Amino acid sequence: MLAPIFRHITANENVFVERLIEYLRQPSISAQDIGIREVAALLETMLGDMGMDVQVIETDGHPMVVGSLPFKPGLPTMLFYGHYDVQPPEPLEAWTSPPFEPTIRDGRVYARGAGDNKGQHFAQILAIESWLKVHGDLPCNVKILLEGEEEVGSPHIEAFVEANRELLKADLVVTADGPLDASGKPVIMFGTRGAVRFDLVAREASRDLHSGNFGGIAPNAAWTLVQLLATMKSPDGTITIDGIYDDIIPPGERERAAADALPVDLDALKREIGIRELDAPRDRPLFDRIMFQPTLTINGIVGGYTGKGIKTVIPCEAQAKCDMRLVDGMAPEKVLSLVEDHVRRHAPGVAVVRQGGGKHPSKTDMDHPFAEALIRAVTLGHEQPPLLYPMIGASGPDSAFTRILGIPAFFVPYANADERNHAPDENIGLEFFHKGIRTGAAIIAQIAASAR
Amino acid sequence: MLAPIFRHITANENVFVERLIEYLRQPSISAQDIGIREVAALLETMLGDMGMDVQVIETDGHPMVVGSLPFKPGLPTMLFYGHYDVQPPEPLEAWTSPPFEPTIRDGRVYARGAGDNKGQHFAQILAIESWLKVHGDLPCNVKILLEGEEEVGSPHIEAFVEANRELLKADLVVTADGPLDASGKPVIMFGTRGAVRFDLVAREASRDLHSGNFGGIAPNAAWTLVQLLATMKSPDGTITIDGIYDDIIPPGERERAAADALPVDLDALKREIGIRELDAPRDRPLFDRIMFQPTLTINGIVGGYTGKGIKTVIPCEAQAKCDMRLVDGMAPEKVLSLVEDHVRRHAPGVAVVRQGGGKHPSKTDMDHPFAEALIRAVTLGHEQPPLLYPMIGASGPDSAFTRILGIPAFFVPYANADERNHAPDENIGLEFFHKGIRTGAAIIAQIAASAR
Repeated sequence: MLAPIFRHITANENVFVERLIEYLRQPSISAQDIGIREVAALLETMLGDMGMDVQVIETDGHPMVVGSLPFKPGLPTMLFYGHYDVQPPEPLEAWTSPPFEPTIRDGRVYARGAGDNKGQHFAQILAIESWLKVHGDLPCNVKILLEGEEEVGSPHIEAFVEANRELLKADLVVTADGPLDASGKPVIMFGTRGAVRFDLVAREASRDLHSGNFGGIAPNAAWTLVQLLATMKSPDGTITIDGIYDDIIPPGERERAAADALPVDLDALKREIGIRELDAPRDRPLFDRIMFQPTLTINGIVGGYTGKGIKTVIPCEAQAKCDMRLVDGMAPEKVLSLVEDHVRRHAPGVAVVRQGGGKHPSKTDMDHPFAEALIRAVTLGHEQPPLLYPMIGASGPDSAFTRILGIPAFFVPYANADERNHAPDENIGLEFFHKGIRTGAAIIAQIAASAR
Repeated sequence: MLAPIFRHITANENVFVERLIEYLRQPSISAQDIGIREVAALLETMLGDMGMDVQVIETDGHPMVVGSLPFKPGLPTMLFYGHYDVQPPEPLEAWTSPPFEPTIRDGRVYARGAGDNKGQHFAQILAIESWLKVHGDLPCNVKILLEGEEEVGSPHIEAFVEANRELLKADLVVTADGPLDASGKPVIMFGTRGAVRFDLVAREASRDLHSGNFGGIAPNAAWTLVQLLATMKSPDGTITIDGIYDDIIPPGERERAAADALPVDLDALKREIGIRELDAPRDRPLFDRIMFQPTLTINGIVGGYTGKGIKTVIPCEAQAKCDMRLVDGMAPEKVLSLVEDHVRRHAPGVAVVRQGGGKHPSKTDMDHPFAEALIRAVTLGHEQPPLLYPMIGASGPDSAFTRILGIPAFFVPYANADERNHAPDENIGLEFFHKGIRTGAAIIAQIAASAR
């Protein structure tokens, strides 16, 4: 079934790139509310023209686009997730060619959204279209969900999935987002860390005070904050918030073995991000750090006089913006409560300001039958087997599917490692775009086969 | 000798206020280099007209004005110190009347510099003038040193005093600066804390990194800085830099008894600065804190994302601006070395950037014979005895006199407690201005008498 589709994709490579360029021309910047509705309408037409039943569904933010082919009982149902919004393109002067004038150079299309995520979900759409063009039909049920606010943290995905369980009902979800391995090897990811975000706000005197006249008398909001933060994480890297590790479900043997099997070039990594040493504790394996350990990160800290020169004041206010990444077993609401309890005990005058309700971690069984199908599909699309990541360090919308719909969720990225997502000169290599279409077509075949 | 001078002062009250107003009209903002040389020239004329030998001496910053009456052997020599520069007047819109259009309201002159320090050293100049007008002569030698950059931290006072030992040779220095007690009682202060200032700069990766992809891998400059700061001061308020307390000379019985005798209204203080509790340790007496204890103050801290909303990054750079106040026995150079040693041991990647060489603490013997003379003089000028402060929390140029010239230095403030120095609506009460002239005249008489 797949060979004629691959031939169709090869025959249409140039046309597909031209259509990708047309799609990338349309800005859809969620943070700035630019072009979102125009692109949602464009997708409605695009999916409708393929014979899909399409709905553009409002949320409290930007709309979701949901498409599905007519349902055929007895066949497995795949939900493809992607997002049609893009990052703001600034700084514009750093782009070699303008972000919304897609340009081909050195075998890549450069444009905002080329990699993240238009180029990837468009490849998936073309894979479905190719099946329909060549065989007139698909061997499984397919649904597509395209979100319009992933780049602003998917604030409504959970409520949306909750409210549309029937519409989104599926046996698995596949997301083509993020990059391949730096070696060019394809990858499949089975989980994401959760996340919570909060600000810590320390207030002491009613104004900044002279550090000579009041030094020793007036509490210092910056010191209050520093001393509080020092009670939350020890220099050896352990998070010292009571109970924070209690609910963690350690990785199984399968996950740990998969992590251990991943290639590591520590020196190249250090060079790339410009660090001398890994964060404490220094002896922890690289992938253990981002897959199986929670973090407590100060994203930003500010208080008192921070301008040029000197101003000898005692700051009356200081603030830290923090995030925590959560691993399997940790629940955002519980973690935020533990943070609040800790702050109440150690610095009752400091306010904890929650920034949203957080995201659950997501984990999918690496031994799930669909995993085998996806590995076969990716191997067909890329002509080499994928690296298997039990977890990635970042957070995503996956938990909405794994937790609320109760289905396995897989990340199968199509973009090259140097896609420069979120940065100027974002791009997708044409080779990877075409492999993505092939992989998308193969996924449909393999998932259908696995259910037989 | 003093009664006819007091009568002269009373008879000339209105004229003196008019002359003060003329003087206050002239801006002399050191930080903005506005009007400095004009006011130095004005003082050169003013002191010259009184028969003083006047020099305007250049430094690497703003010039010093030094005046002296013809030297008479066998009489004690007093050096009066003051500063002719003022704080910037901003925010201008917060002033009831413009800062350089001196205005009398409710028995006060409102203008920038009215209290800090023009109104006070001008009172001293008028005291000398009154002596000359009434008696044609003074019973002791008098020198005046007026600095043009006290408000920017007196960066050249030490080098200047060092280079002009002969010119400034004196038996004591008296400074009329700062406010009287809040109760209206006069005060004499015998010492100032020293100070050092430095920045701590933590740098980790070559750029801010995604807290999901790199959280657990990349060191966080804000955490590096927080953990370092936490090693420098414990939550109980103890500075935990090795050796920092070693050289401290504890107060003698005389100083401790004087501190214990000072009036304390803790509730009023807490209300005034808007704090719930004193800084840790909570059980330390109020004056002990600012007179006999060093401090380590974070003046400002900044790193990573500090704007609105959220940005989940790992900061690559973070910085803290710090000052320390030093008490008797502590030397700035030694303290800065201890800080550098500590940082090298605990966070070798963090840079310590010194902000100047610091100021030594200054301490004058409360039992010095001149102290008795000044107490009598202040009692005559204010018709009540002064409160005696063995030390104040702030830092000043005094150590240049006590250390380099080896003479006792006394602070005898003339301004009201609510002079609002450094703030909008700075003022001096006319009553306090006139008492200042009388006190200045009485100081001349009493110092002369004490040496007989």
